[in-house]
Amino acid sequence: MFEFKIKKSAKDSLARTGVFNTPHGKIKTPVFMPVGTKATVKTLSQKDLEKLDAEIILANTYHLFLRPGEALIKKMGGLHKWMNWNGPMLTDSGGYQVFSLAQNKEFSKNTNFKTTVKIDQNGVKFKSHLDGSNHYITPEKAIQIQHDLGADIIMAFDECAPADSSKEYFKKAMGITHSWLSRCKKEHEKLSKKHPASKQALFGIVQGGTYKDLRIESAKFVNEQNLPGNAIGGLAIGEGKKTMYKMVENVIPHLDLNRPRYLMGVGTPEDLLECVDRGVDMFDCVHPTRMSRHGAFFTKTGRFNIKNEQFKFDKNPLEKGCDCETCKNHSRSYLRHLIFENEISGLRLMTIHNVHFLLNLMNEIRVNLEQNTFKKFKNNFLKKFKHKDD
Amino acid sequence: MFEFKIKKSAKDSLARTGVFNTPHGKIKTPVFMPVGTKATVKTLSQKDLEKLDAEIILANTYHLFLRPGEALIKKMGGLHKWMNWNGPMLTDSGGYQVFSLAQNKEFSKNTNFKTTVKIDQNGVKFKSHLDGSNHYITPEKAIQIQHDLGADIIMAFDECAPADSSKEYFKKAMGITHSWLSRCKKEHEKLSKKHPASKQALFGIVQGGTYKDLRIESAKFVNEQNLPGNAIGGLAIGEGKKTMYKMVENVIPHLDLNRPRYLMGVGTPEDLLECVDRGVDMFDCVHPTRMSRHGAFFTKTGRFNIKNEQFKFDKNPLEKGCDCETCKNHSRSYLRHLIFENEISGLRLMTIHNVHFLLNLMNEIRVNLEQNTFKKFKNNFLKKFKHKDD
Repeated sequence: MFEFKIKKSAKDSLARTGVFNTPHGKIKTPVFMPVGTKATVKTLSQKDLEKLDAEIILANTYHLFLRPGEALIKKMGGLHKWMNWNGPMLTDSGGYQVFSLAQNKEFSKNTNFKTTVKIDQNGVKFKSHLDGSNHYITPEKAIQIQHDLGADIIMAFDECAPADSSKEYFKKAMGITHSWLSRCKKEHEKLSKKHPASKQALFGIVQGGTYKDLRIESAKFVNEQNLPGNAIGGLAIGEGKKTMYKMVENVIPHLDLNRPRYLMGVGTPEDLLECVDRGVDMFDCVHPTRMSRHGAFFTKTGRFNIKNEQFKFDKNPLEKGCDCETCKNHSRSYLRHLIFENEISGLRLMTIHNVHFLLNLMNEIRVNLEQNTFKKFKNNFLKKFKHKDD
Repeated sequence: MFEFKIKKSAKDSLARTGVFNTPHGKIKTPVFMPVGTKATVKTLSQKDLEKLDAEIILANTYHLFLRPGEALIKKMGGLHKWMNWNGPMLTDSGGYQVFSLAQNKEFSKNTNFKTTVKIDQNGVKFKSHLDGSNHYITPEKAIQIQHDLGADIIMAFDECAPADSSKEYFKKAMGITHSWLSRCKKEHEKLSKKHPASKQALFGIVQGGTYKDLRIESAKFVNEQNLPGNAIGGLAIGEGKKTMYKMVENVIPHLDLNRPRYLMGVGTPEDLLECVDRGVDMFDCVHPTRMSRHGAFFTKTGRFNIKNEQFKFDKNPLEKGCDCETCKNHSRSYLRHLIFENEISGLRLMTIHNVHFLLNLMNEIRVNLEQNTFKKFKNNFLKKFKHKDD
């Protein structure tokens, strides 16, 4: 179980295709994982995800811990049974959400909850963004919750320092993240021995902000834990694309070739191509599903917004030649109307197209890697794909 | 075109099965028509409606007239092409919405639009509930809009008097409705001659409040117009079920046997059974789709709300044995979570079940009518179906 087989490595790039084995099936890499925050990929049913050929989906520990609580999900047979999703799943540790949602000043202003987050060596004390209730999560607790949820891949509990922190703070946060990783590993081993039927793979997370030396130190430490996969966290939070790519370049050489590398929270078409090229195997991002609900959509020539006046009388599908359910059935003109009216059917149809676009892009990436044409494919794609504001 | 063939008439009831021919296919009656207010049945795609075997769907003239406007829809090839719905369609005339939405005091309070509605013999002046803009709709205009929209069945423009009006007012409103019906008919004939390719059937609407003599007078007048179908309007607005059934009983004998009878705005399971029994062939109602979005669902033992604590750990589908997509795939426990989190996927899954429930009920009604077991089926159903508050 959790064997990672590299199928094909590019000669002119760090990119590779592979297969990661999980108790719920094989994941073809490189892979984009749609995010199902509250045990549902927003607007889609699990039938939709099957039709979209999603290899694996995510759920968020923070949200499910607060509501409905991991005890309910455990009682219902775990996430897979409860959701009726029979493919592979991954849960994050809740670390990122504790530090982002609970620290969200904008949110705090709207709700009058004081969303203080207090970190010590042992864990994190925070208030729920839903009702201000007090919670305390330790690395052990994060693993216990994820064992109750029962996803195939679970993540270590890490401290995600704010992007504007000092190097000193990043170093301290990295130290905490490393000590928490050791505790997560220990707790995971303990629980796995206790329940040998439950098969889950724990991934560690590299931190260190935008500091090369910290990132390398962290990559080495995480890699040494010999877990089934290694993740890179704390990027895609405003450091800029070039810096993000640079950090990936710094980290990748220190993560074993024969284990999957997961870049957390990254998922625009250009980032997927650039980071596959740099040796990343797994990605997730809420952006593609979130942007769908605001009317934005991907095409091979860039990103557009359906609300734009130019689409008012447009009888074309979102993208000509696209074989998603949305493009096979509906025009831009009709979808524009649905989005303007905030019709739920429209939000779903836009999401179907954008998730299809990204999963199809990953498929094309894999096919081109197999055929030794990845670099050419990447360059052609990026030449045509003009990122536009929406 | 627009031929109505009665297949089977019950011996112990006014109920019958039939087939109504339209340019977009045959409608098996008795039929329940899901409402697609803004050219979409809320939460569902047209693919979903196909899978649900919807015989015909509705769209609302008032909403589409205000946004995006009938000119856009005409330019896009009409409602069918624009929505990509290839089955039969019906548009209402906008009459009901002008008098209900534009007169909505609750709405007026929230928006500060003075939603005055001024009726004269010629037409209705009203302010849009969206932006307070001024509009004037005459019977001719209502028909012109519906010709631009292009549904198979279109409705006459009528005055829907508030339920608490005096008999004198109902009589006056009925007189206006009758004179408008003559004008609608004339305009429809004029436009149909001008565009012989456009094939649409105009239905007249019986009004008269809860006054037997007015209802009979109105039924006679409407029936004499010899239109392809007759509708009963202005009920289901708070007069109570018994009164509503009584009014249907008063009207039906005066509407020709060999033309379909459409009871507007009625669609609970018990009302469908009672009014089929009284000779009604067509129904529509927003309630089943609206209640879905509030977590309510139908079962053969009555109506429940998924938010109820009793469903928290319930691994059963909404209804055992139901073969809708929702029941085949998801438990009450999971759906309860989705509805509590206001997840869009949950709103759609609840809608799929409730629309399936009603369409399946209509199918069972038709089958039992064919087999001469309708009365027995109706009595058994109503004995088990306990309407519960949600």
